[in-house]
Amino acid sequence: MPHWKFKLHEVIYEADTPTGRLFDIALLVVIIISVVLVMMESVTWMLEKYAYEFYVAEWIITAIFTIEYALRIIAINKPKRYIFSFYGIVDLLSTLPSYIGFIFGGANLLFAIRALRLLRVFRVLKVTRYIGESRKLIDALKNSRAKIFVFLFAVLIICIIAGTLMHLVEGKGGGFDNIPLSIYWCIVTLTTVGFGDIAPVTPLGRLIASLIMITGYGIIAVPTGIVSAEYSKATEKPIQNTQVCPNCNASRHQDGAKYCHKCGFLLND
Amino acid sequence: MPHWKFKLHEVIYEADTPTGRLFDIALLVVIIISVVLVMMESVTWMLEKYAYEFYVAEWIITAIFTIEYALRIIAINKPKRYIFSFYGIVDLLSTLPSYIGFIFGGANLLFAIRALRLLRVFRVLKVTRYIGESRKLIDALKNSRAKIFVFLFAVLIICIIAGTLMHLVEGKGGGFDNIPLSIYWCIVTLTTVGFGDIAPVTPLGRLIASLIMITGYGIIAVPTGIVSAEYSKATEKPIQNTQVCPNCNASRHQDGAKYCHKCGFLLND
Amino acid sequence: MPHWKFKLHEVIYEADTPTGRLFDIALLVVIIISVVLVMMESVTWMLEKYAYEFYVAEWIITAIFTIEYALRIIAINKPKRYIFSFYGIVDLLSTLPSYIGFIFGGANLLFAIRALRLLRVFRVLKVTRYIGESRKLIDALKNSRAKIFVFLFAVLIICIIAGTLMHLVEGKGGGFDNIPLSIYWCIVTLTTVGFGDIAPVTPLGRLIASLIMITGYGIIAVPTGIVSAEYSKATEKPIQNTQVCPNCNASRHQDGAKYCHKCGFLLND
Amino acid sequence: MPHWKFKLHEVIYEADTPTGRLFDIALLVVIIISVVLVMMESVTWMLEKYAYEFYVAEWIITAIFTIEYALRIIAINKPKRYIFSFYGIVDLLSTLPSYIGFIFGGANLLFAIRALRLLRVFRVLKVTRYIGESRKLIDALKNSRAKIFVFLFAVLIICIIAGTLMHLVEGKGGGFDNIPLSIYWCIVTLTTVGFGDIAPVTPLGRLIASLIMITGYGIIAVPTGIVSAEYSKATEKPIQNTQVCPNCNASRHQDGAKYCHKCGFLLND
Repeated sequence: MPHWKFKLHEVIYEADTPTGRLFDIALLVVIIISVVLVMMESVTWMLEKYAYEFYVAEWIITAIFTIEYALRIIAINKPKRYIFSFYGIVDLLSTLPSYIGFIFGGANLLFAIRALRLLRVFRVLKVTRYIGESRKLIDALKNSRAKIFVFLFAVLIICIIAGTLMHLVEGKGGGFDNIPLSIYWCIVTLTTVGFGDIAPVTPLGRLIASLIMITGYGIIAVPTGIVSAEYSKATEKPIQNTQVCPNCNASRHQDGAKYCHKCGFLLND
Repeated sequence: MPHWKFKLHEVIYEADTPTGRLFDIALLVVIIISVVLVMMESVTWMLEKYAYEFYVAEWIITAIFTIEYALRIIAINKPKRYIFSFYGIVDLLSTLPSYIGFIFGGANLLFAIRALRLLRVFRVLKVTRYIGESRKLIDALKNSRAKIFVFLFAVLIICIIAGTLMHLVEGKGGGFDNIPLSIYWCIVTLTTVGFGDIAPVTPLGRLIASLIMITGYGIIAVPTGIVSAEYSKATEKPIQNTQVCPNCNASRHQDGAKYCHKCGFLLND
Repeated sequence: MPHWKFKLHEVIYEADTPTGRLFDIALLVVIIISVVLVMMESVTWMLEKYAYEFYVAEWIITAIFTIEYALRIIAINKPKRYIFSFYGIVDLLSTLPSYIGFIFGGANLLFAIRALRLLRVFRVLKVTRYIGESRKLIDALKNSRAKIFVFLFAVLIICIIAGTLMHLVEGKGGGFDNIPLSIYWCIVTLTTVGFGDIAPVTPLGRLIASLIMITGYGIIAVPTGIVSAEYSKATEKPIQNTQVCPNCNASRHQDGAKYCHKCGFLLND
Repeated sequence: MPHWKFKLHEVIYEADTPTGRLFDIALLVVIIISVVLVMMESVTWMLEKYAYEFYVAEWIITAIFTIEYALRIIAINKPKRYIFSFYGIVDLLSTLPSYIGFIFGGANLLFAIRALRLLRVFRVLKVTRYIGESRKLIDALKNSRAKIFVFLFAVLIICIIAGTLMHLVEGKGGGFDNIPLSIYWCIVTLTTVGFGDIAPVTPLGRLIASLIMITGYGIIAVPTGIVSAEYSKATEKPIQNTQVCPNCNASRHQDGAKYCHKCGFLLND
């Protein structure tokens, strides 16, 4: 591995050296600008007024992303590892939309391709690299994932049953015209969002709605309880270390303890 | 018990063998299709366009459910146990609607019977059999049930009092025309759903509404706290096993402990 | 204290004997009926149709409550204790409205007095006497009371600042016509109720609203965390009592432990 | 430091002596009046009717605040410490608006300056000085700050992606006319506020909205879990006793520890 490659790797992939930090921050600024540009382009009067500026800015950003992507492949010894990693795929996808738009053209097609372009937003996720705090959070969420899925599945079943019931009670013609619509209303209600575009009007419908809401109020506690307990476990762990007293075999010593709290024997650090 | 019956029991009631798994998954697919069909039938233009297809599909599903129900009764030695179990009743009810509709006919009656048909959705609950994670969740919910009922009852009393107050303040004619309606609004508000179909318009009404909302914000913590604490207890338990030291009778040993953490005596595993 | 008085006390104040239980349940039924009657009276068409029936029912309930109140005073040795207790005052207030309505008359006055009548609902609170579970809940809420007040006060200050800001940004004429209205909207938003009767329309207003909502989402965690921690403590406590072994000074004995778990010394109960 | 200065310092800065308490309470009343006045001035009919009274009251309050500010500077030995502290800046800013309004005049300018005036509300924060309970709360919030920021940042990314998706699905012309508006809707929905001024109308849009809401329901647990765990830790600390090792001065010994966990010195119970 030549020295310049080693240097480049340090700048692009690491954030410990001053130049590496500078590169990452500069890239982050470009990413945020690209995200803001996509947003602004969607505002009709802005697109009409600054169509040319948007066009130019888009190609500049595409150029920067393309160069960055090329450098990333060059700077690493095993490029496949990067290319097929999550960030590698996201980096590639965020350079493509402009090229695809240029080759295939056409307003409608470009419009559909925008769906890909928004993936460019994922680059912002790189921000989390600077914030070590996110580690424990992700651990807690990973541990509670399965449980929360079971819970959300149960919520969905409640929504299907309650939605069908509301459709029968409120009847056709109103906001509960069909079961999928009633289920949509049920999800809106049970998650305590409550848009109000659909709302029950019959007394019986309102009674059932009240029961659904109180149920939702009661079960909103479940995912919170799960994450709360998992996160508690994740953060409590570091308080106790895995040291075991060589004399009395006592464990659960406090972090940084030098002597066993049971027998006073010197602990090996 | 003849061999074929033993075999059949394995396939229908158990999910450990490959054939048993296949049967359960196939059944699950049929159940999901039946649920989706009920939903689609409720959409007017779909019912008008595919009336015949829905009719045929419904009878096919009814046939499958009837055969399954019969097989379940045949495959078990004490069929009463199954018939009067929760799943037995649900299985029976989910086969009935088509037959009842056929015998009694009539659009209105059929419409009302749909209320029974939606119970077919409960079959989907079988899914939870595959996900062991739901065990602890259900335990935690069972433990917190009584406490949450007490809480929901307290919430209901608050709603009755606040609802009556809002009716007095906002007066007749508006959205708070009578006390039941005001209580409905109170439940919508306290659960933080907030449809907005009814909203206070007088300054005093808005002041009381603010107090209700802040109260709701404060007490939403209660069920969460309950489930959180119960779930914490449910998941913490496995950390300590039920072993008792045969020497010093100490308990609360850590999982996998070989020696008593109090006296160092060898624990029987 | 004569025997009949002792007997009466047992029936009215206690729920352990069969007659005492019967009395309490019968009373509860009357209370629920009285609450439902107040609700029904507020529905215009019901009041018009059943005006006489409501009048009669109201006086019957008033009579029952008056007799009950008299018996409660007779049955106790120190009636002042009862009269000035929370339930004593509530019991008295729930008998008064009909008498006051009879003496002073007048529709408007009666209407205002209804506000007192709804206090009759508090009788329902007696239900909690049967449910021992509410003890721990109330303990946890009592412990977190001060903290939650501090929190709600902080929320109120945020609402005043954010409300004033929204009024400045959205300007006069719309839903944010004056600061109190803007604060009302802020409370509706921060508590995640969101009626939608007032909603920002300017881009800057929507940006600030977004910040308020995300803030609300972040701080909704606070009361929950408080109650969660307090309730955890409240339920964990009974596991350990405050006994200290007179022999070895060990503490943290389990509830009901007869012998010290450290040295086996007999504990004084 | 002369005696009168010492005395003045005691009255103004401390709340332990009767006069000090009286001063603080009196000041608090003035602050609340000033906050209420700003609110009332924003109500059109009130401003029109009591314009003169508001003008007089405002100058009285400005005078009181100016005198108080001067006294605070006089009463302290190192006034710079006060002037550049948080409360010093807030105290200064809450005296300025009337003067600025007097010098520069003009309705529009005054209107903009009101934004500064609302900072006067911060004075109310002084209330927390009386409530010691807020200490632990603030500690828990400080500890969870970084984690909650990471979380809110993740929520914002979800909102940007989901907002862009909803804009593509619902299309131009409706409530999802441009991406910023869609993101605003997404924040309103994910935080479970749900105003309902913007709501999806296409079936696909409603399906995605359902997914967003269920996601929001699932992740609302995260900040709660964080604060819950942090607050638990903050309140659990006292479980560790206040013993300090007489040999090495180490603290944070576990309950029941016999020997110092740092140096092994025998602890006095």
